[in-house]
Amino acid sequence: MNQELFEKGLATRKKVLGNDYVEASLRSADDFSKSMQELVTQYCWGDVWNRPELTHKSRSMINLAMLTALNRTHELKVHGRGAINNGMSKDEIKEVLLQTAIYCGVPAALESFRVAREVFKELEV
Amino acid sequence: MNQELFEKGLATRKKVLGNDYVEASLRSADDFSKSMQELVTQYCWGDVWNRPELTHKSRSMINLAMLTALNRTHELKVHGRGAINNGMSKDEIKEVLLQTAIYCGVPAALESFRVAREVFKELEV
Amino acid sequence: MNQELFEKGLATRKKVLGNDYVEASLRSADDFSKSMQELVTQYCWGDVWNRPELTHKSRSMINLAMLTALNRTHELKVHGRGAINNGMSKDEIKEVLLQTAIYCGVPAALESFRVAREVFKELEV
Amino acid sequence: MNQELFEKGLATRKKVLGNDYVEASLRSADDFSKSMQELVTQYCWGDVWNRPELTHKSRSMINLAMLTALNRTHELKVHGRGAINNGMSKDEIKEVLLQTAIYCGVPAALESFRVAREVFKELEV
Amino acid sequence: MNQELFEKGLATRKKVLGNDYVEASLRSADDFSKSMQELVTQYCWGDVWNRPELTHKSRSMINLAMLTALNRTHELKVHGRGAINNGMSKDEIKEVLLQTAIYCGVPAALESFRVAREVFKELEV
Amino acid sequence: MNQELFEKGLATRKKVLGNDYVEASLRSADDFSKSMQELVTQYCWGDVWNRPELTHKSRSMINLAMLTALNRTHELKVHGRGAINNGMSKDEIKEVLLQTAIYCGVPAALESFRVAREVFKELEV
Repeated sequence: MNQELFEKGLATRKKVLGNDYVEASLRSADDFSKSMQELVTQYCWGDVWNRPELTHKSRSMINLAMLTALNRTHELKVHGRGAINNGMSKDEIKEVLLQTAIYCGVPAALESFRVAREVFKELEV
Repeated sequence: MNQELFEKGLATRKKVLGNDYVEASLRSADDFSKSMQELVTQYCWGDVWNRPELTHKSRSMINLAMLTALNRTHELKVHGRGAINNGMSKDEIKEVLLQTAIYCGVPAALESFRVAREVFKELEV
Repeated sequence: MNQELFEKGLATRKKVLGNDYVEASLRSADDFSKSMQELVTQYCWGDVWNRPELTHKSRSMINLAMLTALNRTHELKVHGRGAINNGMSKDEIKEVLLQTAIYCGVPAALESFRVAREVFKELEV
Repeated sequence: MNQELFEKGLATRKKVLGNDYVEASLRSADDFSKSMQELVTQYCWGDVWNRPELTHKSRSMINLAMLTALNRTHELKVHGRGAINNGMSKDEIKEVLLQTAIYCGVPAALESFRVAREVFKELEV
Repeated sequence: MNQELFEKGLATRKKVLGNDYVEASLRSADDFSKSMQELVTQYCWGDVWNRPELTHKSRSMINLAMLTALNRTHELKVHGRGAINNGMSKDEIKEVLLQTAIYCGVPAALESFRVAREVFKELEV
Repeated sequence: MNQELFEKGLATRKKVLGNDYVEASLRSADDFSKSMQELVTQYCWGDVWNRPELTHKSRSMINLAMLTALNRTHELKVHGRGAINNGMSKDEIKEVLLQTAIYCGVPAALESFRVAREVFKELEV
């Protein structure tokens, strides 16, 4: 493992997903899931999310769209929180999801509207 | 059909995808595909793409991500041209596609890199 | 919004999905989800579902197949109820799902059999 | 292999997809693909397609919807021919594909409209 | 139904998924799901899983990969138990899932790590 | 970039996919695709493919299954060659693809049989 990249990635991951969420995720890691945590923290957060050419807000925007298309509800919820942390307004989130209705189909968008409302409720925004 | 919404949608569609492409698409429409052209021009272009809360550049950005996730190569090429028309730089397109490698997987991203390079070659950008 | 198309769509949506379900869905809509409700009611229910060239029963049949393929369990349950409302028998639903085993794979079909059984239990059919 | 089921399946497969297509497919089979031909002819055609509870026309209808959702263009073309052989009109095919635009998204439906037009051209219908 | 193939399939299914699971699944089958149970037991378990050219352990390995790619969480859990029954170690399961992170994307792999940990906890391995 | 990880990854990538293929791929890389080449060579090939807990043959096996499920024909062809290089026999490839027919559906498996036959023809195996 590249410790420096891991540390850089961890900092970005905490900034986007929230310190508590990431700490809990690391605490619950065991031998089985440790390699996955290391891979994701380096490759996803240390490398791609830290590239300066796109803002974190833009990266959140495209994540909401992709996770809707991929039907990955659990991660959509995680990145819905990230989107708020990265400065997306509720109206901007709504617009991204309306556009998914056209390109991914109505059932995909309806699911993401449900998830987004849960996130807003939990964050009280 | 709502003629006013259709006209508004047609103007946006031409601005994004290019006048020549849209004219050719309409000319080639026959009785079979006409209802589809009308549906798409009204709802996708007249309604969603005309909503002011997101810029066309942001809409292109999330389309590149979604079309990669959905494995829809033909439309990705169409919207790759749209992305350039809407002001995305090649570097911004690259960043979106690098992020798809993380979330949609490497084979999805590699396919979109190939498509993007074809678009750049055809547009000589 | 086109109020006339919305009203027409709402009537069809209630006929297919049941008055109670649709009323509850509208009551729970807030500012965030209102645009989505309007888009879907016009575009999906007012326009496509109201086209006379296919019966509602045929439309239910292809929806069960598509929602299985797309792995959209929540909407499958909604449209499972719709299928009964539109006159599909349990045997016809079974046949559609058996065919999804061949084309979408066994795990997709097994999931839809589970959902269909829940629907039948709730509707006591 | 169950020879009787294979023969029954082969007859149905030829009725739906056309004698020439199936003969060519069998002639081109080699040791590598033979087991797959046997599996498909027995289970898909001998078993599921021969169940009497749904008409072949209904089976074609749901196949067009599923293959659009699954993004399987090659098989969609094969089953587009099957749909015509099983008595679907061009208008009915159009309706199924318009409905896929709502549930599977616009890019999926546009691809299937292109495939359907190729089929109609080749069959001169 | 081919009774001999069904019996052969049932034995393999019990060996892989466990006697209790399969007995419970058969007991809960009703008229609606019986045809599906018969189709799967013959075609999937009697035919493909009984082919001698791949070990059951290899078949489990590719199932974990496919079910992750297909986003079929329920069946992944069933086949996670099967993988342990067929002799995969926890480390081998981890390696398959790490590879899905590259090819299917990080959200797909994270979901499968969660499912695998639930399986290990239930089996106390 | 981590040069050491890149070099290790490059060696593995060449061993699996063939020296000529990888050299051509690197030669054709431009500024646009260079970051993607670096990302993939480090994480996919340098990191995951080099982990010793699974043989390269097992990794090829699960790749054929995943790429079929994901409908990624281009990469399937690349990894079909890799599978032969890593010691899979044609019979083993056939078995993996037969199993995809059950879990991913018949259209997915038929596509992969076509791709595999092209690979065998090109490699004259």
